[in-house]
Amino acid sequence: MLGHQEMVHVVDAYIAAIAASDVEAMLDLFAADATVEDPVGSEPHKGLEAIRNFYTHAMQIVTRLELDGPVRTVNGVAAFALNVLLTRQSPPMRVAVIELFRFNEAGKIASMQAYFNEANFSIIE
Amino acid sequence: MLGHQEMVHVVDAYIAAIAASDVEAMLDLFAADATVEDPVGSEPHKGLEAIRNFYTHAMQIVTRLELDGPVRTVNGVAAFALNVLLTRQSPPMRVAVIELFRFNEAGKIASMQAYFNEANFSIIE
Repeated sequence: MLGHQEMVHVVDAYIAAIAASDVEAMLDLFAADATVEDPVGSEPHKGLEAIRNFYTHAMQIVTRLELDGPVRTVNGVAAFALNVLLTRQSPPMRVAVIELFRFNEAGKIASMQAYFNEANFSIIE
Repeated sequence: MLGHQEMVHVVDAYIAAIAASDVEAMLDLFAADATVEDPVGSEPHKGLEAIRNFYTHAMQIVTRLELDGPVRTVNGVAAFALNVLLTRQSPPMRVAVIELFRFNEAGKIASMQAYFNEANFSIIE
C-alpha cells in the first residue's frame, strides 16, 4: 500500500507538470490502463494515448493548479481540493475542483476523477 | 438529477446537525439503505440504525465541522473539503477531511465517504 508522502509527491508532480506544460512528465504519473474522468459523469479517457490527448488539450487552457488545503490520503487514494486557473482566456477564470487519484501498487495513478460543475467557476477579478 | 443548490443545502444541513448534536436531523438526510464509509477503506456502516450509532458516537467527539472552500457538485455527487474539530479532548485536534456524498433521486444521501488519515490530524494551538 502506497504511503501518504508517496501519494503527496505524485500530486506535487502532477501540479508541476501542468505548470511546465510537460505532457511527458504528466503521462509518466499514470498507469498504462489508467482512466481520467473529468468531470465525473463524462466518458472517461482510457489509456495513455487518450490521456495524452486530454492533457495536451488541457495544457492549452489551464495555466496553473493551486492546491487549496492539504492532500488527504487513505488506502491508496489521494483526495485534494484545488483551484484550476484559466488565465489565457478573457475573462480569466478560476475553477474550484476536488480531485481523486486512485493508485496502483506501482505508485502510478490508476484513475483520476474531477468533481466540479459550472457553479464552481468564478471570474478572477 | 439533483441540482447544485439542493446538494449544497444538504451539506449545510449536515454541518448544522453536527453543530447541534442533533442525530434525528442527521438521519433525516440519509436514505434508508445508505452507507457511511469513514474513513474510506473501513467497513461501511449500512442502514439508518448503523448510521445512528455512528453519528451518536461521532457527536460525542466532534464539536464542529468547518467547510474549507466551496462545495463541488457534479452528476448527483457533492465533494467538499472540511476541517473536523475535536475540541472536547486534550490536546484539541483538527482533522482535514474531504467527503463525498452520493445522492439518490429523492435527494437523500445514498453514500458518504470520508478521505483522511493520521497525517491529516493537527493539534489546534
